[in-house]
Amino acid sequence: MVNRINHVAILVKDLESALSFWRDALGLPVERTEENPGENVNIAFLPVGESEIELLEPIELDSTLGKHLAKRGAGIHHVCVEVDDIDATIERLKAHGVTLINDEPKVREEGTRYAFIHPRSALGVLVELYELPSA
Amino acid sequence: MVNRINHVAILVKDLESALSFWRDALGLPVERTEENPGENVNIAFLPVGESEIELLEPIELDSTLGKHLAKRGAGIHHVCVEVDDIDATIERLKAHGVTLINDEPKVREEGTRYAFIHPRSALGVLVELYELPSA
Repeated sequence: MVNRINHVAILVKDLESALSFWRDALGLPVERTEENPGENVNIAFLPVGESEIELLEPIELDSTLGKHLAKRGAGIHHVCVEVDDIDATIERLKAHGVTLINDEPKVREEGTRYAFIHPRSALGVLVELYELPSA
Repeated sequence: MVNRINHVAILVKDLESALSFWRDALGLPVERTEENPGENVNIAFLPVGESEIELLEPIELDSTLGKHLAKRGAGIHHVCVEVDDIDATIERLKAHGVTLINDEPKVREEGTRYAFIHPRSALGVLVELYELPSA
């Protein structure tokens, strides 16, 4: 069961320039920003209804995201959908021949379990799955 | 005021292949499909929470969408956000130096008013604005 779009992630060269559009011009609130050297990215989280726009600024150009930015340019990077049961979702996807980037869900600090579907299996779209921690 | 993500539009070569991923493998329901020769596109609408995934299949390769598909490949095409007042939003965007593809909102058959922000002003992202008809 897919519950909602958790976020749309947008790759940007520079967070401040991106915020001048999304925050200042369009008027979205910024809930928080996060510096994440571990994943080599600075992130701004902008809630929109039940979803978020996430702006991703690579810290190092020699990282996966940095190389993606250099090669493909700024733009929408992935879409993340929230599911009830990520294990069951992955099983179902595999049964349909879908390739995942990580077969086993990874876990974020706050308990969110996540996995990425390979764009090859999703017709060119990078899709992330989220299972939020139980309340 | 931006209320929610109305839809994420995904450009696909072939609707049936795309549905085999989004509907059959991932399990999203298909609310409806629409053949729209006027805009040269067949569309499948898949609700996810308060938003939708829209799959866009160009009918003619010699159309704007068809050429985009040939040039950039399949993938996320645009994100559409719903606003209360599209005229006020456009005015605000222009005051911030943002370029729109259509300065005056267009109107769909069912009354939705819409406009596209130029990707140049949104750091590589094609953003659509929707103002839904009053209930």
